[in-house]
Amino acid sequence: MCRWLAYSGTPLLLDTILYKPAHSLIDQSLHSKLGVETTNGDGFGVGWYPTDSDGSDGTPALLRDVGPAWNNRNLRELADHVTSPLFFAHIRASTGTAVQQTNCHPFRHGRWMWMHNGAVAGFHAMRRDLTLLVDPALYSEIEGTTDSEVMFYLALTFGLEEDPPGAVARMVGLVERVGREHGVENPMQMTVAVSDGTSVWAFRYSSAGASRSLFYSSRVDSLRRLHPDIPFLQEVSDETRLVVSEPLGDLPGAWNEVPESSYGVVRPGADAMHPFAPEPV
Amino acid sequence: MCRWLAYSGTPLLLDTILYKPAHSLIDQSLHSKLGVETTNGDGFGVGWYPTDSDGSDGTPALLRDVGPAWNNRNLRELADHVTSPLFFAHIRASTGTAVQQTNCHPFRHGRWMWMHNGAVAGFHAMRRDLTLLVDPALYSEIEGTTDSEVMFYLALTFGLEEDPPGAVARMVGLVERVGREHGVENPMQMTVAVSDGTSVWAFRYSSAGASRSLFYSSRVDSLRRLHPDIPFLQEVSDETRLVVSEPLGDLPGAWNEVPESSYGVVRPGADAMHPFAPEPV
Amino acid sequence: MCRWLAYSGTPLLLDTILYKPAHSLIDQSLHSKLGVETTNGDGFGVGWYPTDSDGSDGTPALLRDVGPAWNNRNLRELADHVTSPLFFAHIRASTGTAVQQTNCHPFRHGRWMWMHNGAVAGFHAMRRDLTLLVDPALYSEIEGTTDSEVMFYLALTFGLEEDPPGAVARMVGLVERVGREHGVENPMQMTVAVSDGTSVWAFRYSSAGASRSLFYSSRVDSLRRLHPDIPFLQEVSDETRLVVSEPLGDLPGAWNEVPESSYGVVRPGADAMHPFAPEPV
Amino acid sequence: MCRWLAYSGTPLLLDTILYKPAHSLIDQSLHSKLGVETTNGDGFGVGWYPTDSDGSDGTPALLRDVGPAWNNRNLRELADHVTSPLFFAHIRASTGTAVQQTNCHPFRHGRWMWMHNGAVAGFHAMRRDLTLLVDPALYSEIEGTTDSEVMFYLALTFGLEEDPPGAVARMVGLVERVGREHGVENPMQMTVAVSDGTSVWAFRYSSAGASRSLFYSSRVDSLRRLHPDIPFLQEVSDETRLVVSEPLGDLPGAWNEVPESSYGVVRPGADAMHPFAPEPV
Repeated sequence: MCRWLAYSGTPLLLDTILYKPAHSLIDQSLHSKLGVETTNGDGFGVGWYPTDSDGSDGTPALLRDVGPAWNNRNLRELADHVTSPLFFAHIRASTGTAVQQTNCHPFRHGRWMWMHNGAVAGFHAMRRDLTLLVDPALYSEIEGTTDSEVMFYLALTFGLEEDPPGAVARMVGLVERVGREHGVENPMQMTVAVSDGTSVWAFRYSSAGASRSLFYSSRVDSLRRLHPDIPFLQEVSDETRLVVSEPLGDLPGAWNEVPESSYGVVRPGADAMHPFAPEPV
Repeated sequence: MCRWLAYSGTPLLLDTILYKPAHSLIDQSLHSKLGVETTNGDGFGVGWYPTDSDGSDGTPALLRDVGPAWNNRNLRELADHVTSPLFFAHIRASTGTAVQQTNCHPFRHGRWMWMHNGAVAGFHAMRRDLTLLVDPALYSEIEGTTDSEVMFYLALTFGLEEDPPGAVARMVGLVERVGREHGVENPMQMTVAVSDGTSVWAFRYSSAGASRSLFYSSRVDSLRRLHPDIPFLQEVSDETRLVVSEPLGDLPGAWNEVPESSYGVVRPGADAMHPFAPEPV
Repeated sequence: MCRWLAYSGTPLLLDTILYKPAHSLIDQSLHSKLGVETTNGDGFGVGWYPTDSDGSDGTPALLRDVGPAWNNRNLRELADHVTSPLFFAHIRASTGTAVQQTNCHPFRHGRWMWMHNGAVAGFHAMRRDLTLLVDPALYSEIEGTTDSEVMFYLALTFGLEEDPPGAVARMVGLVERVGREHGVENPMQMTVAVSDGTSVWAFRYSSAGASRSLFYSSRVDSLRRLHPDIPFLQEVSDETRLVVSEPLGDLPGAWNEVPESSYGVVRPGADAMHPFAPEPV
Repeated sequence: MCRWLAYSGTPLLLDTILYKPAHSLIDQSLHSKLGVETTNGDGFGVGWYPTDSDGSDGTPALLRDVGPAWNNRNLRELADHVTSPLFFAHIRASTGTAVQQTNCHPFRHGRWMWMHNGAVAGFHAMRRDLTLLVDPALYSEIEGTTDSEVMFYLALTFGLEEDPPGAVARMVGLVERVGREHGVENPMQMTVAVSDGTSVWAFRYSSAGASRSLFYSSRVDSLRRLHPDIPFLQEVSDETRLVVSEPLGDLPGAWNEVPESSYGVVRPGADAMHPFAPEPV
């Protein structure tokens, strides 16, 4: 299991979100409160979209490494120097899979990024069957050995780039079908974030209806009225939004649980929350 | 702060002590109960003396790495394949010093190994003064930046190889004097283990009289009478002994606290416990 | 491409073979003479069988890491302290595949070890097809992304543990067939060593008949007559044998090329060289 | 010994300079032509100043790691996504000193960056004496064990932030004096680059008058006249300048050797070359 956060809004130094909050993701890497494991020290990753035209090709940049986030100096350096309007961060607690860079989230395909907390129960036994169902044209891009990466490539196979909620629903439907074929009643446990650089889709679902925690931040204009004295809230746009595995602090009114079997969309204009159900395939 | 263990006795696969116990050192790397930090994931080290003539030169072998012990595959491999009659293991929780191999314990000088849990309060400010007092002939062997390594080289400067308790007493005396010169009333906090391959000396001391925990295992012949059903106790010699930062389990009668301001000597023949006091230098 | 060596004979400190020779494998990691790449710095591995009953389960031990061999301190430590009668060592030059521990040779399955120099041409495109042909019961053991590991699991699928030469012949036959299906005329380029802890099989083959270099050392009794003044030759048994990607020095009479399309067997009793041909499957 | 480059001019994606040239620094990490070692795989570092106000504090950002540059994915990611008007890059070939992040160049102090190719002959013996001469207020910032970092802190001690050429001259004078006291006639071998984010000073000097290679690029306006067909030269300002250990390609007229015992200053306005001589202290 793992912890993650997705940020979208006013371009900020990564430090503002990654290190500064009282119960920041870096703090969670040592002392998670809501995670299955209290320690998330088996690698980490940050993926960020550039502020604006910086001569790059529009794909997100990744920094991933195999040690813990809390003592990584390169992460500290980037957080102090990189500004982004949309970024993901992930800290990993392996459940046995190798601790290697190619198993660190976020995963990337073109402009798309994906990260996951949870697990496919029985994945070791189902790995071959699930991997075979990945589009052969995508197969050779799989570099690691996690369930999370296979989920991403299955979602891409099912049209993630055209219809993210539908593709994720079909991916989950497939995992549940293959799970049943292997005698696993409730194989899926997931919170997932995926982005194309403009929108963020965040899913909370588990086959057994007991999903890992997921929260989203309240609209900044509401929070600003509640807490007129917090400078940070003056500096960011109304639409700035965080989605997190667990709250970064205990500011009253700031955090709302994503309901079971739901997904949210964060994008310019109006955000939205929708029910989520697997689609049989 | 850190956690460590020292083993001396019947040659064993490292696995037996490092991984098998319920609250093994590997478990402590994730969930320390008595440590200042619950997570000890900033590097680790194992140092072992060979079982007998193996063509090597009698110095202990070291495996040290910068990631956490709990997910390190090379450590797992060695634990499954290396047998030793005397070994040290250490898991590190850095208090800011760089996480690098040269800061991982144990430290080695010829046949001697040294490891430490604790800290010299105010070390950052005192580092120059303390390092200058290391024997110039030894100075260039210092490879890292920890207080622990400087303590080792000061003890070597004060005759560790001839009189371990005396040298450690003088090292502590010096640190306390330099501490006072820098306005630090109680600079020393330490549990230390040191060995020459035959004996192990284990020290528990702090300037303020509030030392980190340290325990030694009861004599095996007594434990065997208490627990005749535990196979492990049938397999190891009466003289087999463990010294640990925190107990590896909760076997009744197995663990005894090293008293404040004391040191123990584990060696062939009779072990002994003595009072410890710094020696002014 | 890579460099490797396999040692079988009188138990020796690894250092004697890994570091001491003039053109040792460690030297080759910086300055290979016969390799496709002069630098082999993308990870390394050593696998060794224990000297005798050491309480371990008879499987070989592995030390593998992602940095270069030439500056690795843990490798230096093991070489100075571990003695073995049969060991493999491998230095890697990646041709694009991720540099991660699970891509470092040797690979292990139970008591068996495997290492490879060469490449399957077009592997990226053929990876899916080849991986699908691995025995589903073995599939989930695949941890990395190299052609070398897939070759190992295909050989295991084809009965490596019962008939090593036959299984390797069928594995190569399969790769050549799948290669042709993908329009790759000459897909296989390999020197491979495999061992069960008693025998070593070493293969030299390429589809195009232009295989990477492979050498075996002359019998020690012959060498001893040629070079009566070399102490090393007095200390090792007549049957001691090395198989290497390139000679470790230029001792006259010491090194013999393994012929194209051949394999040798090194085992207690008489060693032997045989022709090798792929077996269509 | 090592290789390095310093870039100053039109803000560019790091990739343009680090990876794209025919004989790029990344290529030099595998195949240096003019270096003492052909392989520079013992760690690397990049330090860059931000394009403009990015919310950071004006200090340069560092990415440093212990593996080779040629296979490092985080470096590849940054090169593809970070744009900077002034950056340093360095690849290391250790001569025995530990391969660890704190020994990787560039070193940083506030807004200042420093990198070095060369060595202080006899440094192991002189390390204590040289380190003691570092300003005690700076001593505790020394994190590694290289001669290069001690040279930086000595230069800071001698006023680098006010008078870079004078401070470097005094640092060299000191090293030569301490060298003589240790019986080392010609201790200094160096090419050094140092920057405050606005100017770059590049020094070429050795006590024996046989300094490692150092080159600077010709003015872009001259090059543009010579090579009107090269798009890159159309895109960068006249003042864009590179200083490199060895040329990044063989464009006629592009590269000029920095004379022995000289230093150059690259800054907005007019660049300049001056003689360099140690200053006795």
